[in-house]
Amino acid sequence: MSAQIGVTGLAVMGANLARNLARNGYTVALHNRSVEKTDTLLAKHGDEGDFVRTESLQELVDSLEKPRRVLIMVKAGAPVDAVIDQLVPLLEEGDIVIDAGNSHYEDTRRREAALAEKGLHFVGVGVSGGEEGALNGPSIMPGGSKESYQALGPLLEKISAKADDGAPCCAWIGTDGAGHFVKMVHNGIEYADMQVIGEAYDLLRAGAGIEPAEQAAIFEEWNKGELSSFLIEITAEVLRHVDPKTGKPFVDVVVDAAGQKGTGRWTVQSALDLGSPVSGIAESVFARGISSQRAQREIAQETLAGHEGDVSLPENFVEDVRQALYASKLVSYAQGLDMLSSAAKEYGWDLKLDEIASLWRAGCIIRAELLKDIMEAYKGDEKPANLLFAPAFVKSVGDAVPAWRRVVATAVQLGIPVPVFSSSLAYYDGLRRKRLPAALIQGQRDLFGAHTYQRVDTEGTFHTLWGEDHSEVSAVDTH
Amino acid sequence: MSAQIGVTGLAVMGANLARNLARNGYTVALHNRSVEKTDTLLAKHGDEGDFVRTESLQELVDSLEKPRRVLIMVKAGAPVDAVIDQLVPLLEEGDIVIDAGNSHYEDTRRREAALAEKGLHFVGVGVSGGEEGALNGPSIMPGGSKESYQALGPLLEKISAKADDGAPCCAWIGTDGAGHFVKMVHNGIEYADMQVIGEAYDLLRAGAGIEPAEQAAIFEEWNKGELSSFLIEITAEVLRHVDPKTGKPFVDVVVDAAGQKGTGRWTVQSALDLGSPVSGIAESVFARGISSQRAQREIAQETLAGHEGDVSLPENFVEDVRQALYASKLVSYAQGLDMLSSAAKEYGWDLKLDEIASLWRAGCIIRAELLKDIMEAYKGDEKPANLLFAPAFVKSVGDAVPAWRRVVATAVQLGIPVPVFSSSLAYYDGLRRKRLPAALIQGQRDLFGAHTYQRVDTEGTFHTLWGEDHSEVSAVDTH
Repeated sequence: MSAQIGVTGLAVMGANLARNLARNGYTVALHNRSVEKTDTLLAKHGDEGDFVRTESLQELVDSLEKPRRVLIMVKAGAPVDAVIDQLVPLLEEGDIVIDAGNSHYEDTRRREAALAEKGLHFVGVGVSGGEEGALNGPSIMPGGSKESYQALGPLLEKISAKADDGAPCCAWIGTDGAGHFVKMVHNGIEYADMQVIGEAYDLLRAGAGIEPAEQAAIFEEWNKGELSSFLIEITAEVLRHVDPKTGKPFVDVVVDAAGQKGTGRWTVQSALDLGSPVSGIAESVFARGISSQRAQREIAQETLAGHEGDVSLPENFVEDVRQALYASKLVSYAQGLDMLSSAAKEYGWDLKLDEIASLWRAGCIIRAELLKDIMEAYKGDEKPANLLFAPAFVKSVGDAVPAWRRVVATAVQLGIPVPVFSSSLAYYDGLRRKRLPAALIQGQRDLFGAHTYQRVDTEGTFHTLWGEDHSEVSAVDTH
Repeated sequence: MSAQIGVTGLAVMGANLARNLARNGYTVALHNRSVEKTDTLLAKHGDEGDFVRTESLQELVDSLEKPRRVLIMVKAGAPVDAVIDQLVPLLEEGDIVIDAGNSHYEDTRRREAALAEKGLHFVGVGVSGGEEGALNGPSIMPGGSKESYQALGPLLEKISAKADDGAPCCAWIGTDGAGHFVKMVHNGIEYADMQVIGEAYDLLRAGAGIEPAEQAAIFEEWNKGELSSFLIEITAEVLRHVDPKTGKPFVDVVVDAAGQKGTGRWTVQSALDLGSPVSGIAESVFARGISSQRAQREIAQETLAGHEGDVSLPENFVEDVRQALYASKLVSYAQGLDMLSSAAKEYGWDLKLDEIASLWRAGCIIRAELLKDIMEAYKGDEKPANLLFAPAFVKSVGDAVPAWRRVVATAVQLGIPVPVFSSSLAYYDGLRRKRLPAALIQGQRDLFGAHTYQRVDTEGTFHTLWGEDHSEVSAVDTH
């Protein structure tokens, strides 16, 4: 019996994807560097479907129907290259190598180009949903050649999560690194999404004195409305949880230093290369960084003056916070999608934002009701230049603006840091402002570096002779 | 006659450095790809000192005393490598190649390692001060081997700016890319410095209705106090300037789209690699990005609701803004210096923050009175873990906190974006906060990704069995 797909790397993510494929009727060839993992998987879950046990990559390759599909699920970085190097000599033209790990899209671009030269398809696939998603239906973002998707797409769509309307949460994203890029941006949005929930929690706790258990009920309530999402749902669960050892709220016994694995950072670094202002995502990455600077925080707690103002909370503070959370979250999505538009231009990808929003509707960490509206916003022929300009969101965010301002102003007076709430509001105000102080910056730059400027009333590029008579001359643009 | 130093690349920066060297008594050999530039320089400024005209790199090299010092001033990137490739075969062991352009420090690290293998010294030198500084005394940040500084340092110190106390604004920064790294961070701080001035201007203009000419007087006044700096000084000059064509304030006829050349972006990208939270610097880079998104801004101006609150300005608004500017500026310096500390660890550089602050006191764009206090803060044996913890700044920033909060709260209600003011305040509050919502984020991460967490009351790493009975188990740290 030949297998339809092979999986090498059977740690939990690889094992769960293999099981998901087998449960969906595919024959799956298994390989792992140490055969114990393969045997453990077969012993525990061998009855879930048809597996082929192999002990070497050669055996794995030999067990597959053609064109071969080999899915690699190993640690991102050098291990992926190592497996590819061993695998490639065993393969034939037209075979498909799939990297389903969290690889950097630039690595994926490089690998795709290298394998294409050998007549092989290399498909970088973003997979979101964690271990649970991998087993029961993740959101899947495959890149690579369109041709490869014909042979691979049906399998991936089959094992993917399904949205409410039954649509698979998997679609071909674009050539080479597009899949991993979109997954990276998904994670960047996820960082911001988690941080704005954290800011809301902090305001309700430290600002309004609402204990975690009570907040769990509030988040549950919020989960019924426009904020409805996986992350709000699990926030309620985390806040409701009581630590079995101490009887205290769980959230109070956890060290407040947030870890990170790099995709948030990558998102911001790529956005900077693209000139895409993802300020909210950046602030969420930095907020985790600050939280982990334990030594500095201990000194700061003893040293830095707070001088919190004497603040009376706005009348409907909880509802205000909900609206601020909603608006800030929207801005993070807007920034992430704007970054995708910039990347599409830069890398020649025909990214379909409606399809991307669609496949984030289920299976992945940022899955949310909201994504249906985002999908709709990009469906027509008239794509908004920014998510915030889609009529539905002009209205919903616009409605939230007064509460948003009240919440940020209140937080600032309370001394509660809300970096993403405030940064998102600054982004919103920055975009809609008629005049920005960037004109002054251009003046400064022209004065100290002869960087030139443009005028509002004339075409051309100009320089003022600051050191001389302050007259203006035409100049070569050195922006 | 042999020359003490050769300069190749005679565009304005290279020409001005060559003239500065000659004016200081050094014999300078000149080279440029097209000899016209060399001849123009000699025709215009040949009488300023001793120059040696050369037509080829071979001639340049032959004209130099040993160890040879060759300073390259060409566009960063491939042109630098091209010149190095031509130059290296002509040199002898112990010769010194100097790159005084705005190269990325990673390139400098790579080049230094490559030339060291050939027995050559490669010195990446950060030079700040623009064309004017290059001619009359820039702030100079040389990296490379300590040995190379013995032969090169005296020349660079001679042509550098001098601080009030007569100290040269030049010192050996550290091995390989340290000089270019420090220059990069200087520029990152410069971005933030310019943006906070822009935010202050915007608040005074749009918030308090103070016209540019009147603001020029305010900035002049501010320039006499703790804000005293080159950038505040030129801000007054720009604001006072009246456009000769229209009679309007100059700042009103300039297109409000701020350009950038990359060092701000590099700073943030490097900081992300280092895990250093430079949020204020990042916001200043993003603010320039937003300002340049003209197409989106035009739509946003028509589309997005403002709902500015009905705000009465705080009583001493101008003074409040000054204090907010001061505190935000301090945070940007703190973030930049914190990044230097992280880089020192990462790259094995023994960066002396007091010396770095010292050599930024004159010649460079961020030169400011403040830098004297920063220098003092790092002088003793007890280095503060963060600039904000130095006693002088605990007091001065602490004093500014109430005004800072009032200003950000007011700006938010007015709908005036103050991304760096608010981000800096969030950083300050984030550092000094006893508990951050990062604990909730750790809970979320443990729930959806089994990322584990630590407890405030026990050593170890833990995971809650969320899908099961919510009991807690010991775990391997996967932060």
